[in-house]
Amino acid sequence: MSRYLGIDYGGTQSKLLLTREAPGGLERVREARVPTPQGGDSVEALARLALEFLGPDRIAGFAVTIAGIVDAATGRVVSSANLPWLDGTDPAARIAARIGAPGLAVQDGAAAAEAEATIGAGRGFDDIFVVALGTGVAGAHVVDGRVRAGAHGAAGEIGHIGPGTGARCSCGQRGCLETLIGGARIGDAWDEVLGLPAGSTNAAGGARVVVDAADGGEARAIALLDRATTALGRSLLGVVAMIDPEAIVVGGGLSQSTRWILDPAVRTVRREATFHRLPEIVPSQLGVWAGAWGAAIAARRAAADPAPTPTGTEAAAWPR
Amino acid sequence: MSRYLGIDYGGTQSKLLLTREAPGGLERVREARVPTPQGGDSVEALARLALEFLGPDRIAGFAVTIAGIVDAATGRVVSSANLPWLDGTDPAARIAARIGAPGLAVQDGAAAAEAEATIGAGRGFDDIFVVALGTGVAGAHVVDGRVRAGAHGAAGEIGHIGPGTGARCSCGQRGCLETLIGGARIGDAWDEVLGLPAGSTNAAGGARVVVDAADGGEARAIALLDRATTALGRSLLGVVAMIDPEAIVVGGGLSQSTRWILDPAVRTVRREATFHRLPEIVPSQLGVWAGAWGAAIAARRAAADPAPTPTGTEAAAWPR
Ligand SMILES: [Zn+2]
Ligand SMILES: [Zn+2]
Repeated sequence: MSRYLGIDYGGTQSKLLLTREAPGGLERVREARVPTPQGGDSVEALARLALEFLGPDRIAGFAVTIAGIVDAATGRVVSSANLPWLDGTDPAARIAARIGAPGLAVQDGAAAAEAEATIGAGRGFDDIFVVALGTGVAGAHVVDGRVRAGAHGAAGEIGHIGPGTGARCSCGQRGCLETLIGGARIGDAWDEVLGLPAGSTNAAGGARVVVDAADGGEARAIALLDRATTALGRSLLGVVAMIDPEAIVVGGGLSQSTRWILDPAVRTVRREATFHRLPEIVPSQLGVWAGAWGAAIAARRAAADPAPTPTGTEAAAWPR
Repeated sequence: MSRYLGIDYGGTQSKLLLTREAPGGLERVREARVPTPQGGDSVEALARLALEFLGPDRIAGFAVTIAGIVDAATGRVVSSANLPWLDGTDPAARIAARIGAPGLAVQDGAAAAEAEATIGAGRGFDDIFVVALGTGVAGAHVVDGRVRAGAHGAAGEIGHIGPGTGARCSCGQRGCLETLIGGARIGDAWDEVLGLPAGSTNAAGGARVVVDAADGGEARAIALLDRATTALGRSLLGVVAMIDPEAIVVGGGLSQSTRWILDPAVRTVRREATFHRLPEIVPSQLGVWAGAWGAAIAARRAAADPAPTPTGTEAAAWPR
């Protein structure tokens, strides 16, 4: 059976996932986490780690996720926020030369969204919106297994829609969803509530600290999260009105708190829906391995069709 | 050359458009407006008017627009708001029997959007969002010439997205875009500004009255329209963030006022955009004939592929 390697190239830690064809789709052979090699020779070092991980196993192809913008036509990294030394390089070509198998670079958020949509929580649905609640808030509309990248690779930006009034967002607008439920913003808001120096909560664990406080019955933490999840619920209603997906998958670190994040958001959606045809709203399933799975899926797809149409994963400049 | 008939079945007036294949696509042969026959035998009467309109011309097929929900599999009308006697019937089959050519029913908003996107203002773009500013506010995302209907035929509802606070909307939510720029709501708001009995402005011409007052320098009319177009501009920014289309086509009666509606909305978009990759934002071109053109296009498509996949126009329950 053909084997495919997924490499999730993270800022500090990278993940290696070896998969093989199975009757139900790809299945895991083994996986490993490695510290991400840093600096100029890092791609070469990562390729050596991948070769060591593979051992005697031969692969039909691989893909490597990049946290940034990948040029679909050339495979080169246009820009990467957390791995700046990759800008303008072709990491997939360098890894391919080292491990002796063809490969490609894919945008990490799109790869993770496609994996969640096709083999994770969205399995069985054809038309899925994936929301990632992390330090920021990202989104992707996945249709028939591929991210709808939009005309300029910029679709799905649920985190950066809002009334245009309210707190200033990292994107320059005011009142975006991210200002209310982005993990970093929840941390900032908690500093303000407690009168702590700016950055204290984010240094101590960020939104997790606030969720823990809510678990402990802290009324101000509960109120803060309630405001955040009400905003998330309203935004999801907007997704339903605009996109009308079969399912919404909510992932990212914050989504792990069913009690304080996912359940209240779903309650808001149900309470405020009127004409809407509500989709299933489900938590993500692949966790931190979504990107590596997405890379393995992309590798298999590329092997099946060596010159794919440059849409979806490869072309996407999915929001960071 | 094959000829196709588009029938736009309106509440009070219907439109007949005879087209023929030409090197650049369909071209108009002739057109007519007829009063819509009312009541139980109205489809038969409409078919007779179509037959008379065609005269000796033979057609390869026709389509008839329906203001409501059409079941794609059966061709039957599930429900029609302004032609309630059509509920549960198959008007296309009855017309086909009378005029001796095959035909199908299509949802009117989707037909108009597809026509604008493919042969109207969106011509030359593949990925277009169409907004219709009428009594209410509707929208449709047209990709490669077909409306993206969504999982339940309910996508594109730009008019019914909002903060959930503010004025009650016809859809049951509060603060939707439609409460601020729906033509009927602008009329209501003008009644309030002037202290007129409810319904006065809408009886006298609706939002057109307010646009005329703005043309005359009425500061309160200018302020009312400014609030409406600011909301429209914010909503279009949301479309850009979520959908990232190549172009946005703004149609419907209100869009005809470039000075007081389209230009201010575009100014808001440009002023408030930050990360956004802005699409072209253009006025519609086909005017009241968009539905009839869309029907002719659907007829030609059905003739080319007699068993089309039931997506897009036929399946769409596009917002009224
Ligand atoms: Zn933002
Ligand atoms: Zn509404």
